[in-house]
Amino acid sequence: MKRHSSSKRFVVGVDLGGAKILAAVFDDQHRLVAREKKGTRPDLGPEAVVERTAECVNEALAAAALPHTAVAAVGVGVPGLIDTRRGVVLVAPNLHWRNVPFAKSLSKRLHIPVTVVNDVQAGTMAVQQFGAGRGLKDFACMFIGTGIGGGLVFRGEQYRGAGGMGGEIGHMVVVAHFGPKCGCGNRGCLETVASRGAIVRRIIKAMDDGQKSIVRTLCDGDTSRIRSRILAEAYRQEDKLVREVIHDACHYIGIGAANLINVLNPQAVILGGGLIEALGSRMLPRITKAAFAHTIAASDERVKILDSGLGDDAGILGGGLAARALVKSSPASG
Amino acid sequence: MKRHSSSKRFVVGVDLGGAKILAAVFDDQHRLVAREKKGTRPDLGPEAVVERTAECVNEALAAAALPHTAVAAVGVGVPGLIDTRRGVVLVAPNLHWRNVPFAKSLSKRLHIPVTVVNDVQAGTMAVQQFGAGRGLKDFACMFIGTGIGGGLVFRGEQYRGAGGMGGEIGHMVVVAHFGPKCGCGNRGCLETVASRGAIVRRIIKAMDDGQKSIVRTLCDGDTSRIRSRILAEAYRQEDKLVREVIHDACHYIGIGAANLINVLNPQAVILGGGLIEALGSRMLPRITKAAFAHTIAASDERVKILDSGLGDDAGILGGGLAARALVKSSPASG
Repeated sequence: MKRHSSSKRFVVGVDLGGAKILAAVFDDQHRLVAREKKGTRPDLGPEAVVERTAECVNEALAAAALPHTAVAAVGVGVPGLIDTRRGVVLVAPNLHWRNVPFAKSLSKRLHIPVTVVNDVQAGTMAVQQFGAGRGLKDFACMFIGTGIGGGLVFRGEQYRGAGGMGGEIGHMVVVAHFGPKCGCGNRGCLETVASRGAIVRRIIKAMDDGQKSIVRTLCDGDTSRIRSRILAEAYRQEDKLVREVIHDACHYIGIGAANLINVLNPQAVILGGGLIEALGSRMLPRITKAAFAHTIAASDERVKILDSGLGDDAGILGGGLAARALVKSSPASG
Repeated sequence: MKRHSSSKRFVVGVDLGGAKILAAVFDDQHRLVAREKKGTRPDLGPEAVVERTAECVNEALAAAALPHTAVAAVGVGVPGLIDTRRGVVLVAPNLHWRNVPFAKSLSKRLHIPVTVVNDVQAGTMAVQQFGAGRGLKDFACMFIGTGIGGGLVFRGEQYRGAGGMGGEIGHMVVVAHFGPKCGCGNRGCLETVASRGAIVRRIIKAMDDGQKSIVRTLCDGDTSRIRSRILAEAYRQEDKLVREVIHDACHYIGIGAANLINVLNPQAVILGGGLIEALGSRMLPRITKAAFAHTIAASDERVKILDSGLGDDAGILGGGLAARALVKSSPASG
């Protein structure tokens, strides 16, 4: 039976987002063997999303030409508050979920052990193991996408606070009273001035107000289709509106990074997520400049502002790592 | 010789601030035996301040009727960046110091081993051992005085970041672009809207602009004399200007606390410093209300906002603890 156990040398990492599900198969060296993608469709309810996640995993396994029996575990990153021990998603606002026993439901469908972790936590694990965080003991991650999530590593270990709910850097208030209103009810949260969501909202409003932009053409007139890639293309084509809005966002991301540096004095602030994957090389110099204009005591010689180097793969890589940790913690499951 | 060693059962804690020096003698149970106070006079230069610190320690020992030989060590908290190993104050803006070999200079005068630590670090140690932080593993301290300093405790240990310069919560930007200018060069740092310094500046300006306030009488027309106690008295007498300014400060301190809660999800945010000692019971309910209006996920059932319970003594208590740690680390010194 030992033979059987050691044959389960693959894991699957899943990044379950509000818009799309990504699943990837990793071998025992954590090399990516195959990947698949699927729309999440949270509007269909939790059961349907579990079903779609199972399909996405099955398709990735098919693409890798692997049977289910070759997979030791599946690790899923979910944007929300997770009880990892019980495998329950306690709250996931983007999915409109409350108390969904996700690990059990998915495991029942796949006949593979499943673990669920917070998506940013998964991404931070990946940055630490495979990205710009390698070799660092103290750093903060900022993932810039629809929202802004944060991961913290102190003394070599990920830190999420006493209640496991830390890292909500997107709701750090940076423009009290004067900033735009946030979904959380407040004004001036970092997310309202610096996320891709905020950038897109500002661009749509400006276009509606009559400002010209190539974005209208790039999205074929359907503004719901504006994603990081369209923003990057418009930026490359020197679209005035997009440049102005992105530059403002860089300024605020820099202030957010400076706040983390002033409070935590890390070795590095590491940027990731879809927007950074698409526009990192344009944005990083501006973010860095804004950050060090707002730090006290710490200088850019001592604290680095880095691209994660993982693009949008941090989630699946981290999901895979969570799966690997599950296998280690329960050796009998092989 | 053992007898001699165990007779050195006292330590001295010093809180060296920009305005005043506090020195206190503690017995082996860390009970306060005697205390003295002296103006700092940083305008006279580092040598004079070292001299005045030595005098303050000598006076405290005299008040305790103890010889120098009864003291195992002196621990001094200094507002600045400290190289504790070498006993050097690297930078202390409020004292206008750079690279002052403080421990050596003071030790030479007192013939007692001296250790120097950052003042906020000392205060946080005291909060953890003797104040509202007892029994907590994860908390953040906010010391509200002339400026705003922060201390962080994660998993039971104090954390100051990779370079030892963390905790600068006073320079967390909370009102980007629109806030008042800060000494650090930026706009809208927490310190510019919520410190005692900011409160006093705003009150003086309003009075200069013709607004009436009892503060003018309470400080005998000398606005340089406005301290926390005068603010507390004016507040107690329902002075309209003072109430308005203090209430605004509470709102911003609440936002600062919320930012720490959103990023770090601690068990508690603990408030200390001169302003809280004088006005804590009035300010805490307002600070708490503002904080939980700005937190996401964390609720006031899970995260507490507490008065440190140490008033302005956190510095001397922490200095004493640093002295005790020095004695422990070098048993041969007794």
